[in-house]
Amino acid sequence: MSALAKRVVLAARPMGEPKLSDFRVEDYAIPTAGEGQVLLRTIWLSLDPYMRGRMSEGPSYAQPVPVGGVMEGGTVCEVVASHNPNFAKGDFVLSHSGWQSYALADGKGLRKIDPALGPISTAVGVLGMPGMTAYTGLLDIGQPKEGETVVVAAASGAVGSAVGQIAKIKGARAVGIAGGKDKCDYVKNELGFDDCVDHRDPDLAAKLMAACPKGIDVYFENVGGAVFEAVFPLLNAFARMPVCGLIAQYNDTAPTTPKWASALMRNVLTKRLTIRGFIVSDFAARHGDFLRDMSGWLREGQIKHREFVTEGLDGAPAAFIGLLKGANFGKQLVQVGPDNSFDG
Amino acid sequence: MSALAKRVVLAARPMGEPKLSDFRVEDYAIPTAGEGQVLLRTIWLSLDPYMRGRMSEGPSYAQPVPVGGVMEGGTVCEVVASHNPNFAKGDFVLSHSGWQSYALADGKGLRKIDPALGPISTAVGVLGMPGMTAYTGLLDIGQPKEGETVVVAAASGAVGSAVGQIAKIKGARAVGIAGGKDKCDYVKNELGFDDCVDHRDPDLAAKLMAACPKGIDVYFENVGGAVFEAVFPLLNAFARMPVCGLIAQYNDTAPTTPKWASALMRNVLTKRLTIRGFIVSDFAARHGDFLRDMSGWLREGQIKHREFVTEGLDGAPAAFIGLLKGANFGKQLVQVGPDNSFDG
Repeated sequence: MSALAKRVVLAARPMGEPKLSDFRVEDYAIPTAGEGQVLLRTIWLSLDPYMRGRMSEGPSYAQPVPVGGVMEGGTVCEVVASHNPNFAKGDFVLSHSGWQSYALADGKGLRKIDPALGPISTAVGVLGMPGMTAYTGLLDIGQPKEGETVVVAAASGAVGSAVGQIAKIKGARAVGIAGGKDKCDYVKNELGFDDCVDHRDPDLAAKLMAACPKGIDVYFENVGGAVFEAVFPLLNAFARMPVCGLIAQYNDTAPTTPKWASALMRNVLTKRLTIRGFIVSDFAARHGDFLRDMSGWLREGQIKHREFVTEGLDGAPAAFIGLLKGANFGKQLVQVGPDNSFDG
Repeated sequence: MSALAKRVVLAARPMGEPKLSDFRVEDYAIPTAGEGQVLLRTIWLSLDPYMRGRMSEGPSYAQPVPVGGVMEGGTVCEVVASHNPNFAKGDFVLSHSGWQSYALADGKGLRKIDPALGPISTAVGVLGMPGMTAYTGLLDIGQPKEGETVVVAAASGAVGSAVGQIAKIKGARAVGIAGGKDKCDYVKNELGFDDCVDHRDPDLAAKLMAACPKGIDVYFENVGGAVFEAVFPLLNAFARMPVCGLIAQYNDTAPTTPKWASALMRNVLTKRLTIRGFIVSDFAARHGDFLRDMSGWLREGQIKHREFVTEGLDGAPAAFIGLLKGANFGKQLVQVGPDNSFDG
């Protein structure tokens, strides 16, 4: 008789907040590794907010877990048997074997963990996906500069705690948002953030404003909802907002944020959209390139243009009112005086 | 007696759509150039949607025109008298002298126009601010790749017509949105866009979908409102959305788009925000950098972390439900099996 393993499967798709009855714990026989396979024993299972998305159907960046299927998740495992030349018994590996105590793998997608880098549990934490989310989102998108203010919510969590500490390493002011006094104290006193605001405080907006006297340059978005609404008015010009999660919206059946805004942010996340406002003068350094290319294209006939001319300054107000309604056909100009440039 | 010049001043701040009575045409004496000054005679005045913003008070990226002040605007002028060594009588210059037929300038902010590049009127059109808005917004933010689909509204206008034509030069599919059959025909037949959809069509969303069979990779946003709502569901993963205007919202007193979304987009524009969704795997190429930096910071004590451990797989569902409510304090892990890694 084979020994028993344990797994957690999705029993039902949750409506709103998941309930215990949406999960089911099952026993199963520990499988046997075949040719090219390894048998993994799970030591650490990481639980992460993104898993809520996998429990629901509907468009996202990944397939949902089927009902009856093993819940998905990152794991730290020990190789307990190997018929694969790349892995030996006793190796520790990072896997995505899910909520189960034993799993087979063919070696693809496994990454060996070097225990010298830190406790092996950090391979799904600060040295794993949450740490790398903080690192890349903050440095590659947020790009904090010295003296700027970086705000992150869920600041005592795996991602948020790394975001604020990396911001400090880069010379920025780090302000966290967390739930309750204990977490806020930890964020300030142990993690070394400059300040931390309790999101349960009824005065969240005012407290956040006080904690960010020079506004917010980077908001690392991982919660959405009411926190986003408090942050938004404080964003400075040229602020950057990496969006890697919207945990406050994940259980929404009747969203607290207006439906349209909530849909917009959900799409920004799942489709990894970039939305960026600009004024042409922000690109002043590109003027030489522009003039060279555009006059060349014009000369070669690759760019055509059309002018819509109103004669005389008296006609300017009506022309402008028309422009706002699309009455013009081409570039709207007012000819104020005679153009003798073709003589000169 | 001195000769008379003419100017248009802001008579009143418009509520919603500007009316003719919000402007006033005035006569004034042609001024005389003093030491270091030049006298400019306006030939071409450019009318642009951004001017609507200058007519209102309230936060934007620029100061409003005061009531009674000359309306702001880019101009092409001839130097008719000069006491400034950098400019000669007969020079053509690009200025920002506004809605008036004569103006004095001290030379700062004037740029000489080379009539060899094209008709001087293009200095406020395709070779000026609108052309450069199209060029930088599309190339620096939109970054269209060969075969991608670029959509732009107000496609027969100064900015939109350049956006689509540059997209074609870069090998992308260009789809315009314009008001009425004449403009759509012009955009397709004369400007060479691949398709153009009439925004007055009650079936805008369906027509746009048909015109973009592979979705939308770049949406150059200059209108907002209903057009944005038709575009949004068609955006592909990793789509880019440069936002340089929201003309459909400029006259809003009671916005058609929900207030919150409209405020969000207005802020994206005026504050030049960058909002970018991401998933950590998008940055897979940065994994080596991450592991090097983060393990170094960990070793040096610059990064601290905290684990919140649930014992046993049976506890995983409750731990996950708690995680979504912030019940965890630090990185949430489930210890599924014994960790002997410290031995190995």
